[in-house]
Parts: sequence; structure tokens; C-alpha cells
Amino acid sequence: MTKDDSGSSPAKDYHDPPSVPLMDPHELTKWSFYRALIAEFIATFLFLYITVLTVIGYKSTTDPAALNADQCGGVGILGIAWAFGGMIFVLVYCTAGISGGHINPAVTFGLFLARKVSLIRAIMYMVAQCLGAICGVGLVKAFNKSLYNRYGGGANELAAGYSKGTGLGAEIIGTFVLVYTVFSATDPKRSARDSHIPVLAPLPIGFAVFMVHLATIPITGTGINPARSLGAAVIYGKEKAWDDQWIFWVGPLVGATIAAFYHQFILRAGAVKAFASFRSSTHV
Amino acid sequence: MTKDDSGSSPAKDYHDPPSVPLMDPHELTKWSFYRALIAEFIATFLFLYITVLTVIGYKSTTDPAALNADQCGGVGILGIAWAFGGMIFVLVYCTAGISGGHINPAVTFGLFLARKVSLIRAIMYMVAQCLGAICGVGLVKAFNKSLYNRYGGGANELAAGYSKGTGLGAEIIGTFVLVYTVFSATDPKRSARDSHIPVLAPLPIGFAVFMVHLATIPITGTGINPARSLGAAVIYGKEKAWDDQWIFWVGPLVGATIAAFYHQFILRAGAVKAFASFRSSTHV
Amino acid sequence: MTKDDSGSSPAKDYHDPPSVPLMDPHELTKWSFYRALIAEFIATFLFLYITVLTVIGYKSTTDPAALNADQCGGVGILGIAWAFGGMIFVLVYCTAGISGGHINPAVTFGLFLARKVSLIRAIMYMVAQCLGAICGVGLVKAFNKSLYNRYGGGANELAAGYSKGTGLGAEIIGTFVLVYTVFSATDPKRSARDSHIPVLAPLPIGFAVFMVHLATIPITGTGINPARSLGAAVIYGKEKAWDDQWIFWVGPLVGATIAAFYHQFILRAGAVKAFASFRSSTHV
Amino acid sequence: MTKDDSGSSPAKDYHDPPSVPLMDPHELTKWSFYRALIAEFIATFLFLYITVLTVIGYKSTTDPAALNADQCGGVGILGIAWAFGGMIFVLVYCTAGISGGHINPAVTFGLFLARKVSLIRAIMYMVAQCLGAICGVGLVKAFNKSLYNRYGGGANELAAGYSKGTGLGAEIIGTFVLVYTVFSATDPKRSARDSHIPVLAPLPIGFAVFMVHLATIPITGTGINPARSLGAAVIYGKEKAWDDQWIFWVGPLVGATIAAFYHQFILRAGAVKAFASFRSSTHV
Repeated sequence: MTKDDSGSSPAKDYHDPPSVPLMDPHELTKWSFYRALIAEFIATFLFLYITVLTVIGYKSTTDPAALNADQCGGVGILGIAWAFGGMIFVLVYCTAGISGGHINPAVTFGLFLARKVSLIRAIMYMVAQCLGAICGVGLVKAFNKSLYNRYGGGANELAAGYSKGTGLGAEIIGTFVLVYTVFSATDPKRSARDSHIPVLAPLPIGFAVFMVHLATIPITGTGINPARSLGAAVIYGKEKAWDDQWIFWVGPLVGATIAAFYHQFILRAGAVKAFASFRSSTHV
Repeated sequence: MTKDDSGSSPAKDYHDPPSVPLMDPHELTKWSFYRALIAEFIATFLFLYITVLTVIGYKSTTDPAALNADQCGGVGILGIAWAFGGMIFVLVYCTAGISGGHINPAVTFGLFLARKVSLIRAIMYMVAQCLGAICGVGLVKAFNKSLYNRYGGGANELAAGYSKGTGLGAEIIGTFVLVYTVFSATDPKRSARDSHIPVLAPLPIGFAVFMVHLATIPITGTGINPARSLGAAVIYGKEKAWDDQWIFWVGPLVGATIAAFYHQFILRAGAVKAFASFRSSTHV
Repeated sequence: MTKDDSGSSPAKDYHDPPSVPLMDPHELTKWSFYRALIAEFIATFLFLYITVLTVIGYKSTTDPAALNADQCGGVGILGIAWAFGGMIFVLVYCTAGISGGHINPAVTFGLFLARKVSLIRAIMYMVAQCLGAICGVGLVKAFNKSLYNRYGGGANELAAGYSKGTGLGAEIIGTFVLVYTVFSATDPKRSARDSHIPVLAPLPIGFAVFMVHLATIPITGTGINPARSLGAAVIYGKEKAWDDQWIFWVGPLVGATIAAFYHQFILRAGAVKAFASFRSSTHV
Repeated sequence: MTKDDSGSSPAKDYHDPPSVPLMDPHELTKWSFYRALIAEFIATFLFLYITVLTVIGYKSTTDPAALNADQCGGVGILGIAWAFGGMIFVLVYCTAGISGGHINPAVTFGLFLARKVSLIRAIMYMVAQCLGAICGVGLVKAFNKSLYNRYGGGANELAAGYSKGTGLGAEIIGTFVLVYTVFSATDPKRSARDSHIPVLAPLPIGFAVFMVHLATIPITGTGINPARSLGAAVIYGKEKAWDDQWIFWVGPLVGATIAAFYHQFILRAGAVKAFASFRSSTHV
């Protein structure tokens, strides 16, 4: 909460890691690479399992047509938003040291654009995430197929009364909030000052997801994670979920791109671009 | 939770930064200054976008007159309070290293009074915050104009049954709670003891906002942030919101002034005033 | 989460501060002592102001007899529990470095029994806390007297259907949970291992208050803080609140005593008592 | 959030503690061992007391058949989930330095499988936990026997409409989430990087419990803690609770086993298995 003028200071107390090469074949020979894929798969699996189960459980508890319905007893949209945000907090905390804790193709894409993960790693992560999401939603359907189908399958769909443009905009800005928080939390400049980011970063990242869900569940059900939207669409399989699916890929990828641009060019490297005459050389 | 007697100790293990000069023309030549303005604009934009969208979404979900109304399914006042508090947590976390993470003219004003930001920076921050807030609420209106207008536009208005004095008092004390927490969290004396304030300060600051919203949403809708109140009033544009607007500027600025006074003269510099014979010269 | 055998180790890496003397007249000559009293007064004032305002606002929002009642829109018991727990988190965070952040006569009493504050400080803190609480509730009443009186004034009373013994037991165990957490968080042995307790202790302390409110609001409204109960009783002034008042003093003070005993004799010094033959001399 | 390749690096900056011997008679002569049993007993006692009281209080507040019923005023499933998760956060925080903060036979079992606690300690912890749980629920029943019996006694039972296999699966995966988080939070490799795990680990562990409750309360009431399920079944004593009791032992123990396997063989020691030619011998 104090101004930070180090942007124009020639002395740097932090170290920017070199950009990751686009292709790194050496990576494929390491067990840690495959371990990271397993961790992303399991994390996305657990993420979808817990969150979609919460959505279905909420709707079945409060359905006025159900036996023993208790209209006020369910967890509400607030509880659903907690489930999404809280799981991201827990899972990023658990997997940060293994895979980086992405659990979301949009996050992986943003970090790829910033050259923090290689192309091959980015693609493989996204595949693992999508497979994990499909399996997670599949398990929820296996638990109780009739409830699953009756209550919308946890699929992301544009709500009645909102245009496709609005839905796309909501996904873009929502993902921007998430990926901007991810970049802020993992900034090496920040680490230099605080020294223990890896422990604390998951909390604001989880809260960012929580916040976006509070705001946009009434509009799109909130995607901001293409793996989550794909997994639910594959298992639910209704036409409407597929018709809107593109929104939940284009929106998050555009949002992540803007966040990567904002962080890399405005907040971090901007001084260089804008005032080339300044002494600071590359990443201030 | 143990008493701290260092107030009367002549040996100091912390360093009070020198007061910022009132005018610092050199500041205007630095990219970091403009970068901070951009960060304040974006943060306030996202703050209003997420929170007002939550308010409108809540009201449209639970309106008994609406199709598919679900009176109990909305996020409730509790969810709205979380949206305001949680966004402040996330955004202060993200922007603390860039602009100081004010996101609120009252916070900027309090820090200006304590000579922690210069006059020019304070004014420019407030302008950026107000513009960001207007754009954020404007986007919510653009998403769905009819819902926005039908459900009050997120504007701060005095509720029926409360006097103007009560509303003003609620804003003063609410802002006092917030700005007092900001001062406590960013106190250099505290940093000396704990060493990693920047990471942890955003959580109590966000909680302070959350708490004040729980208490005063039924009275004024809770402003404690003139940019937030102005942005909603400009976009909503109804007479009542403008009639009460002064409350949401006078209240927060007075509350911030009292908090700055309390922190600087009672909690920090009090020893000096009271026991002028002590060796420590100015800020103990 | 790993077992800690240091209890039997002769080498200690932490330092137990010496017990505070029962009377310390020197204390009265320091400005830091009076500053601490002011901080306790202000913190308890803000605590009661925010929490009782939340209680009254909740009841007025959801009263079916009220105009524009919205039975589901209020913050609910969950929101009230958050208000109490969240304010303790924020206020302990803000005042920990000034007064130790007690904000509760039961906490002060427990720390006095453990010889962590002197008798004179304990008594003066309690007076400041009670005065702050009375003023805080008084301000809520001044805001809207008719709502305040109609909705119970935030006073602690035994609910119908519960015996006095049950209410007393609920207060004893609830305060035990709180004061046990305070002792755990401020244990010098813990500090030696973790090194930055002062920043993190307020969060579990606030959560302890949150949890106890979730459980016992339906029984006693949850006191676990004699200043809170006294303040509401003084301002509300109805007979029932005074008849039950003893429960909210005896319960918390007994609970704090048990917690102090549990921490000092079982968890910390127990080895000495139980196995006098062990080499470790005093505080293991 | 950056990839971590240290899995294949021969240089280790962390220290794996040696496996605990299966039987360690020396342990039984230390006061710290008995102190740990007392701490586990008290913690599980408080855990069940607060959580079951919240469940009963919620149901009695919102029962439409009750006097002064307020259908929307209760804490809801969201509040119940907070009670379980929040208490685990507080209690793990308080007991981590004394007993390791298990408070759950499934956690103890998982840590035993990973050779982090000895057999004798594991068995004695489980006994202490079960006794604590029985006493905690017993006290809730003693507070108000008729409410306790009318509202289900906090017992875990399979909800109508779900098969035994589904209930078992929900318990297995739920416990996996919890024990996986425990392993991640207490990993010595993580400690080497972050250095102050003991303070921060309780928060994600508590959130994991919170999340699982949000998702599976509608299915089984959520056990994931055999002591919790046993304690409620013993005190409630109805046939249905006993008929389903095996689910709440088999599920959590299987889930903990899978989590221990996943952490020890996939995430930690995997490099060894897969690339036996690497120099690192056992725990990479």
C-alpha cells in the first residue's frame, strides 16, 4: 500500500527467469513431466467432481417438486461460488510444486504466451485437464444419472435474456480477472520482495474464481475454464450446451491473452517500450 | 497478543520513510507513475464490474415477479458483502506492488493526509479511480440495460426510515474501519516486526470491507468508496442517487481523516505529544 | 502434522518471557499503556457497532411484518456469525501491536491468569472494553431507536427450551475454544518454530469466534465476551437481559480459566508436573 | 505456478525424515506422547461438539413445525459445511505442534501407511479420537435431548435415492481430497522451499473439509472421518445409523490409502520407479 518506484531504478533485487524455449524435447525424458500431467489430470478431475456434485446437490435439495424439498436449505449460488473458488484454492495449493497448479487451459495458455511453459507442455497440460474434467463430470453422472440429467448436468449455457456478445464479454473479463491474479501472484519481482509466494498465492487465486462466479453465474453459469465447460458438455450432451460451447473457449482464451499482454507489456516491461531512453535495460 | 512497550523505547528497529513532498514534479517523468494510474483505473473498473453485476444478478434471480424466480437461490446480502470484500482482497493483492492498491479515493485521501503520497499523485489516482468506476458500471448496464435499470443500478441511496445524519454517520464509521485497517497493515513499525506485510495485508483489508457491508447495506447500501458511489450515480442517473451523493463523499473523506489522525497522532506519534521529554524525536 | 517430540528434549530453541509482575507501577507512567487502553476502547466500540448493526439489519430486512420484507434476503445466522468472527480477525490484526488485541474481558482474564498481563493492566483493559461496548451499542440505538428496540437490541438471552445450566455450559465451552486458540497462537514455543505469528494469529482466532457463533446462536445468542453482553444489556435495558447476565460473565470467565489451565499445565508445563524425574527443568 | 523440475535433480535442498519405526517402545515413556493423546481427545471432542450443535441448531431453527420457525434464517448446508471446515482449520492450527493435528482416524491411518507415525501411536490416536467424538456428541445430546433425537442426532446416513456403492465412492473420494491435502501441506520438500508450513497448512486442510461437505452432505451427510461417524452413531443409537456405519469406516480408510499411495509413489518417489538409472536412491 505504498507506492513503489523501483520501476525506474537501475538496481534490481529480483531475477527474471529466462523465457522457456518453445520446444524442449529434453523435457519429455523427465519423469517430473509425466508426474505433472498426472497431477493436472487428478486435480481437474477432483475440481469437476466436487463442483458439479455441489451444483446437482443444491438443485435437488431445493427443487419444490422434490420430496422433502427445503427451498431455503440448499447452499445457494453463494455456496456454489465457494465450491469453485475453494477447490481452486486447495488444488493450486496441492499441485503448485508438482505441475505449477494450472487446472485450467486458459491459465496454461496465458502462461504459454508469457513464455513460462513450453508449447509441448502447454498442449499436454490442456489434454490432461480436459480428460480429467470429462472423467470428473462422468463420475457425478454415474453417482445418480436421473438427478444429473434433471438438473442440467452442471453444463455452462447462456441464460435466457442475455445476448451471445454479453456472454462472451462476461467470459473474457472473468478470465482476465483470474489470469491477471495468477500473473500477479507468481511475478518474480513480487517474490523478491516477499520471498514465500508459493504458499500464499493460492488464496487470492481461489478468491478471484469465487468472485467471478458470484457475478456471472446468472449469465453463463460461469466458465472461465474451457476444460470445465467441455467436460460438462461431453457428459451432459444436450444440444444447447454444445451450441454455446464456443463461447467458453473463445472467451477464456481471449481473456487470458489480454491478461498476459497487460501484465507483460503494461505492468512489467512497459517502461522499456514507452521510454526507451530510460537506462533500465530489459524487464523493469 | 502480548503487550508491546516499544512505544517508549528509545531504540527503534524500524525505519519511518520520510514524508512525501507535497509536490514532486520529478514523479511525472517516470513511467511507474503512469503505470500506477493505469493499474488503479483497471482495478476500480474490475471492482465495480464484478460487484454491481453481483447486485443486479442477485436481484433479478430472486425477484418474485420474474420468470423462474427462486426467492432463496440468490447470493443474498451475505453474497454481496463477499463480492465487495473479496474483490478488494484480490485487487489490493494484485496492485499493491504497482500503485499501492488504493482503489478508493478515501484511502488515497487518508494516505495523502499522512504524507504517504504526494498531492499530484493523490489527485491523479482519484481521477483514475472515478473513471474506472464509471466504466465498470457502464459495462454492467451495457450487458443488460433493462435489468440494470429495473434493479436500482447498484446505486447508493439512503434507505427509507433512516435520517441523513444516520447515513452520514454510517459512512464515516465504515470508512474509519477500512482506513484504520489500511494504516495498521502498512505501518512500517509492523513491517519491522513481521517482515512480509505486503503479502498478508490485503486479507484484513478485504475483510474490513466485507464487515462494513454486512452492517450497513440495509442503511445506505454501503459506499465507503466515493468512486464506487459516483460511478453508479453517473450511469444510473436517477435523481435520488444524486440527491444523496454528497453523503458518499463527505462521509468517507471525514472517516478517512479521522482514521489518519487516530493512527498518526494517537497510535504512532502519541508518545511524543504526551511525553515531550522522551528522546525519540518525531514518529514513535 | 508431524509428531513433535521436543517436549522431552533438553535443548530449547525458544524463550519463555518471564511472568509479568502482579503490580507494575512503572507501567502507569508510560504513554504506551494509555495508548493501549484507547486502542482497546476503540476496538470494542467498533466490534459492537458493526455486529449489533448486522443483527438489527438482518432482523429488520427479513421481518414478515415489515414493508418490503424479503424473508430470504437477509444475511442469516451465517452472516451474523461472520460479522462477529470477521470483526475479531480485523481488530486483533489492527490492535495486536498496540494493546495485544484482547477486545474481550475473558481473553484478558485468561492472559492475566497465565501471568502475561499485570493485574492493573487487566482491570483497566476490562474497564475500557466494557465502556467501548456500551458506546458501540449505544450508537446503534441512536441510529434507529425503534428498530433497535423492536428486534431485541442485540442482547444475549437464553433461548426458550434451554436450561440455565445448558446456557452456562455453552458459554464455558465456547470461551474455552476461543481462549485455547489465543494461547495456541501466541505461544512463544510456536513463535520459535514459525517466526511470524503476529501476522497469522488473528485468522484462527477470528475463525474460532465464527465457529462458536454458528453453534450457539440458537442457544444463548452467543456471548463468550462479557463486554459484548454487558454493553447490549445496558443499552437494551430489558429485564430478561439482566436476569441472564450472570451467565455471560460466569461462563466466559470459567471457560478462560480452564483454557489457561489446559494450556499452561497440560500442554506446556505438564511434563514437569507428571514426570518430575525428567531432566528438563521448568517449561517443556 | 511455475514448473518444478527438481524431481530429476540430483541435488536436494530438503531433508526427508527417516521412516518412523513400526513399534517404538521408547515413545511410551515420554510425557509428550500422552500430552498428544490428550490434545487429540480434546480436539475431536470440540470438533463434534461444535459441528453437531450447528446441525441440530440449524434444523430446529428452520423446522416449519416449530414455534417461531424461520425457514430462511438458519445457517443452511453452507453454514454446516463452514462449521466442519472451519473447526478443522482452528483445531489443526492449535494442535499441530502438540500431536500433529490429526483429529481424524483416516488422517492418522494415511500418515501411518506413509511411515510418519508408529503403529502404537496410530492406534492410540484413533482410540483417543473416537472417545473424544463420543463425548462431544454426548454433550450435545445432554444439552437438549428432545431436539437432538428429533433432528437426526448428527448421524451419517445414506440419503434415500443413493446406492451403497455411491455412498462408499463419495466417502472414498472425499477422504482422498482431505488426505491428499494433508500430505501436500506437510511434505518436507515443500517445507524446504517455503519454510513456514506449520502456520499455513491448516487453512487449505480446513478448506478441503469445507469443500467435501458442500458436495456430499446431500448424499451421506459427509463422514470422511470415522471418529465423527462413530461418535454420532453411538450416541444417536438408531438402527439406520449402525447399518450404514461400515461405509464410514471402509470409505475413509480406502480413500486415505489411495492418497498415501498417490503421494508417496506417484508424486514423490515416482522418479525412482520410472528411471531407475537416476542416482537418487529412494525419496525423490
